[in-house]
Amino acid sequence: MTGKEYIENNKQKFLDELLDLLKIPSVSADKKFKDDVLKTADVIKSQLEKAGADKVEICPTAGYPIVYAEKIIDESLPTVLVYGHYDVQPADPYELWDSPPFEPVIKNDKIYARGACDDKGQMYMHVKAFETMMATDSLPCNIKFMIEGEEEVGSDNLGIFVKENKEKLASDVILISDTSIISNEHPSITVGLRGLSYLQVEVTGPNRDLHSGVYGGAVANPINTLCEMIASLKDEKNHITVPGFYDKVAELTAEERTALNKAPFDLDEYKKDLNIDEVEGEDGYTTLERAGIRPTLDVNGIWGGYIGEGAKTVLPSKAYAKISMRLVPDQVSDEITELFAKHFESIAPKSVKVKVTPHHGGDPAVTPTDSTAYQAASAAFEEAWGKKPIPTRDGGSIPIVALFERELKVNTVLMGFGLDSDAIHSPNEHYGIFNYFKGIETITLFYKHFANQK
Amino acid sequence: MTGKEYIENNKQKFLDELLDLLKIPSVSADKKFKDDVLKTADVIKSQLEKAGADKVEICPTAGYPIVYAEKIIDESLPTVLVYGHYDVQPADPYELWDSPPFEPVIKNDKIYARGACDDKGQMYMHVKAFETMMATDSLPCNIKFMIEGEEEVGSDNLGIFVKENKEKLASDVILISDTSIISNEHPSITVGLRGLSYLQVEVTGPNRDLHSGVYGGAVANPINTLCEMIASLKDEKNHITVPGFYDKVAELTAEERTALNKAPFDLDEYKKDLNIDEVEGEDGYTTLERAGIRPTLDVNGIWGGYIGEGAKTVLPSKAYAKISMRLVPDQVSDEITELFAKHFESIAPKSVKVKVTPHHGGDPAVTPTDSTAYQAASAAFEEAWGKKPIPTRDGGSIPIVALFERELKVNTVLMGFGLDSDAIHSPNEHYGIFNYFKGIETITLFYKHFANQK
Repeated sequence: MTGKEYIENNKQKFLDELLDLLKIPSVSADKKFKDDVLKTADVIKSQLEKAGADKVEICPTAGYPIVYAEKIIDESLPTVLVYGHYDVQPADPYELWDSPPFEPVIKNDKIYARGACDDKGQMYMHVKAFETMMATDSLPCNIKFMIEGEEEVGSDNLGIFVKENKEKLASDVILISDTSIISNEHPSITVGLRGLSYLQVEVTGPNRDLHSGVYGGAVANPINTLCEMIASLKDEKNHITVPGFYDKVAELTAEERTALNKAPFDLDEYKKDLNIDEVEGEDGYTTLERAGIRPTLDVNGIWGGYIGEGAKTVLPSKAYAKISMRLVPDQVSDEITELFAKHFESIAPKSVKVKVTPHHGGDPAVTPTDSTAYQAASAAFEEAWGKKPIPTRDGGSIPIVALFERELKVNTVLMGFGLDSDAIHSPNEHYGIFNYFKGIETITLFYKHFANQK
Repeated sequence: MTGKEYIENNKQKFLDELLDLLKIPSVSADKKFKDDVLKTADVIKSQLEKAGADKVEICPTAGYPIVYAEKIIDESLPTVLVYGHYDVQPADPYELWDSPPFEPVIKNDKIYARGACDDKGQMYMHVKAFETMMATDSLPCNIKFMIEGEEEVGSDNLGIFVKENKEKLASDVILISDTSIISNEHPSITVGLRGLSYLQVEVTGPNRDLHSGVYGGAVANPINTLCEMIASLKDEKNHITVPGFYDKVAELTAEERTALNKAPFDLDEYKKDLNIDEVEGEDGYTTLERAGIRPTLDVNGIWGGYIGEGAKTVLPSKAYAKISMRLVPDQVSDEITELFAKHFESIAPKSVKVKVTPHHGGDPAVTPTDSTAYQAASAAFEEAWGKKPIPTRDGGSIPIVALFERELKVNTVLMGFGLDSDAIHSPNEHYGIFNYFKGIETITLFYKHFANQK
């Protein structure tokens, strides 16, 4: 039986297993889901064992554990290290989901659930591709799995694990499916990822909530002040005003920009899909450039004062915001975090106190297109999809890619199969059933081409 | 027995009854407390009956009912209409209370509970003053009570009730205790109140929450946009930038400002009490002026995006704020609300949609100091406190004062006994036991002087 036939014969089983996995609310950001996150690690371990892996381990960390597994068929063959994550983003706001986020449903050939695409669906394709190759006796390389449970909260403990297990993780390439393709008609491989600096800020005015009638106008309102401080972080051209922010940004050449702007993209469709009248971004760059090669600053959350039903005339003591910046080569996350913190503290008026708490971050990464691994991925796509994939820059961040390159000295191939419209991190996240099965097939073909080219 | 003796003999009873009243969470802003709000009206009704009122009624409205009561002893005598409210502000954030807001405790001679001062404590003084005068056969005027349950949510239905019951509410003066005195050493009577315009704004960017990595930098973030719009509402001198906002503001004369600034006030104490390094407000005005005679704009609440534990890299679809403006004579609440809405919509960039929802409001009011009612109140304070009260301008709003003057053609006397430090609308609201009993005594003396002067 060929791999393709095995996948065809096991479609229902592959789908049912993913649906079961999606039922577990493995939200790493919220402690109340702790047992579920741990349970998810157990399920991954058990499925890797069933698929035929040896040495399957739940490796404890200071946070959630890392599931490790391997199948070494011949020390002289190349080794692929698969990375993925079993934790998911919080599902808030629940009321905007058409069906409960942890009760997966299939509609219009798509699986709807938190984590359907990011990253349970994409990660589990690797488990099933491995099973397929084992079952059809066609695994042509050694394989290692490192599946973590803290990607959505910054992968703090993964870095320690990687540093302490360099030998165990020794490999020729790291393979990750946690990105998207342009469309099912235009397969693509992500070769650039933005980095991230994520911080929380707290502005304190008076030491207690005050009556806005008695004190309003005479005492700084920390919400107004926070708004003013946030507004000042960008100028009228949407340039970020943090001093030194752009110092290390690598400008692309005119040729590179031209190539990037040739990717299939329809601005009218884009605006229609989001129901916006105008896009908005940094002057002098196209939408594709703004989302791919330029750094950004977004408020991801803001709160303060009375946010319940009705009205309360309060002048609150505190206001908060979660702010993140997407970084591009050669910005360094730790440096940007420090520049931001220093700047934000410096612009606070004397009437308030400001606290800045760095949350997590990761450096931007670019992967070479001339490596054997990239070539193998490209050939696998071409064989499975009938089209050569387009190399693209992705706006998102997988902070551990830069870490892997630094610590393990191994390149990564980002072989993602999601679509930007999959609503990852949003209500109604979904993943195409076509993409799930086509992804499993493409992954098995990667191993074939990688073994041949190596 | 004199009134003073009766109060002295019944202190424990007066206190216990107030504590019982404070145990009922009559939060009008939140529907989940509906039964408690209604129960509070029943308690007020029953206490007014026990105190000796006739025709005690629970008057239904489209919202919470109004408790009406009267004691007409002689049609030829002057009539006092007492107004108060039995609803309270929401107690959020509960975690900042040292003791549960609806489990009143006495500490350092103060009663701690939501509503202790605003307005259950102050309103209930009138019920007890009435009881005192009835029990000691010393009621010298006719008396009417109108106690509502929607003051904290804008008194929408009170206006209708007043318009429909002008004859029933006919009186010579309206007496309200819902304001504060400068200090227990410096009794005062509020002669000016700021008005209010309260609105909610909603900024919508994309039609769904987006991944900030995929879309960040290319699509307007409604939180950033809302912050920019709010920041633009004040200029660098803290003047409000809404066109026409100041057009009807009555500037005080130099003499009036000098008089106002003579009120006892210690800026260092003020800053120390609030634990702030600097005050902040409109250029060219003192703190007392900023809080009393100048209009203001405060964000009372803001929310959007992910506000839970941890991090979520979301570019949200929506951001919201509750914004209120305190108004001064001769600004008109409806006009300012319209000016604000029009301006806020006009400053929205094309990349977002904006919805402005007026909430509630009230016009500013000034009460004359040369009326017999004011003179009676002043004499009552002087007799009870041994000091002539200082007339002051209060920054807060009791929107119905302007309504009463307009509809009933009757002046109001604001005979409040709270302190600014009572933390009304804040966690740990409290009311001094001294103020409670002294207030009851002062109110009985008001009736004596009012009957004499009339």
